[in-house]
Amino acid sequence: METIGKRQWAIVDGYLPAWSNGPDPEMTSHEAICILNAGDREARVELTLYFADREPVGPYSLTVPPRRTLHQRFNDLEDPERVPTNLSYSCIAVSDQPVIVQQTRLDSRQAENGLFSTIAYAQ
Amino acid sequence: METIGKRQWAIVDGYLPAWSNGPDPEMTSHEAICILNAGDREARVELTLYFADREPVGPYSLTVPPRRTLHQRFNDLEDPERVPTNLSYSCIAVSDQPVIVQQTRLDSRQAENGLFSTIAYAQ
Amino acid sequence: METIGKRQWAIVDGYLPAWSNGPDPEMTSHEAICILNAGDREARVELTLYFADREPVGPYSLTVPPRRTLHQRFNDLEDPERVPTNLSYSCIAVSDQPVIVQQTRLDSRQAENGLFSTIAYAQ
Amino acid sequence: METIGKRQWAIVDGYLPAWSNGPDPEMTSHEAICILNAGDREARVELTLYFADREPVGPYSLTVPPRRTLHQRFNDLEDPERVPTNLSYSCIAVSDQPVIVQQTRLDSRQAENGLFSTIAYAQ
Repeated sequence: METIGKRQWAIVDGYLPAWSNGPDPEMTSHEAICILNAGDREARVELTLYFADREPVGPYSLTVPPRRTLHQRFNDLEDPERVPTNLSYSCIAVSDQPVIVQQTRLDSRQAENGLFSTIAYAQ
Repeated sequence: METIGKRQWAIVDGYLPAWSNGPDPEMTSHEAICILNAGDREARVELTLYFADREPVGPYSLTVPPRRTLHQRFNDLEDPERVPTNLSYSCIAVSDQPVIVQQTRLDSRQAENGLFSTIAYAQ
Repeated sequence: METIGKRQWAIVDGYLPAWSNGPDPEMTSHEAICILNAGDREARVELTLYFADREPVGPYSLTVPPRRTLHQRFNDLEDPERVPTNLSYSCIAVSDQPVIVQQTRLDSRQAENGLFSTIAYAQ
Repeated sequence: METIGKRQWAIVDGYLPAWSNGPDPEMTSHEAICILNAGDREARVELTLYFADREPVGPYSLTVPPRRTLHQRFNDLEDPERVPTNLSYSCIAVSDQPVIVQQTRLDSRQAENGLFSTIAYAQ
């Protein structure tokens, strides 16, 4: 059976809330890119971040071992630079192997959970 | 590599909540159309809004520079007319370049965040 | 330009919360099927509801005029029978014209908004 | 008319919250895989779960009768083993018949509903 997935993915509505309520780390406001590599080869994934008013930043390099899933918080990315909070961004992920990508945000700024998750756009 | 995206997008469940709780502008109830133009040419995007009981309104003209993302709140659209609150609408976006579209709503009417985001329908 | 949309749609996770908090009708717990008919012909849409333990129920007949959007709460369907609350269901919509379908649920059982919306599955 | 659906589905952002607020079972934190079998043959569906740091677990075998829908909470899976809470996972579902899959999570850890639902990735 062919490995499930695609090589290009896009998250358009990226946003890191600037503050949180509740116990850390579970309820800390965050946004994550979740990547499933169901295949038998390591996947190298490069993220590029897009903004409203400046040139794209990247690549952020991630590795997903075969038959593993990676839930990467954007808050934790550091190289080439940290992702700013309270600023809209988009993200394109390009993988050398078929993977599947889902975006999730937990927004606990108002002490009440704002939570969403959606399969990213594939091509 | 071909530019990622499509030229026609649809948001079906459009709705602007009529009131808010929390600090402005972060927690103001709003709905946004997020558009990523990952290509090297400026994208001209025209929005048409559809309603239950009257003819469509538009076009609302947006411009997304190359390698930029635009998070446009429907609340802020003014030309040809403002978008009514507390009234269901749909939106079709037609772009002259490949783009990717995601819809997001923050509903803070009840002091608790109602938040969702979903990739729009592409064709 | 070809009319945007498809003729077959599926909502899998259907559920009507059994109680609500907040002002009626805005904050009443509900689930809606939102249908955009961007074309120039009236669309006739038939819904069939599927359950875990009994035969499907339907058709529920809806009409969406040309260039109009319909936000139909499942709570308000009556013919052939009302939709039960607190019971999981799925829904298939078949249209004679291309349309686009999005599902939305507002769950206000706990006084805090649970809100989601997602483009339905198209074929 | 051909039966609506696909045979391979992926949920990437799987997560079982570790605690709850509110009346059980309605408001218990949970994650569910919702599967619609709109066809006339029983569908056998096998789930495989993927993790960050260990080999995949499965198959979990499910059966969806013809013209029925199944809302299976991951919390309730027991064979070959229970799904851990507070640990990220992904899920691939392979069916011998066309089905449609939607993922839903209710997170009631903070007494406020975090709710999302999204159509899974199909191939």
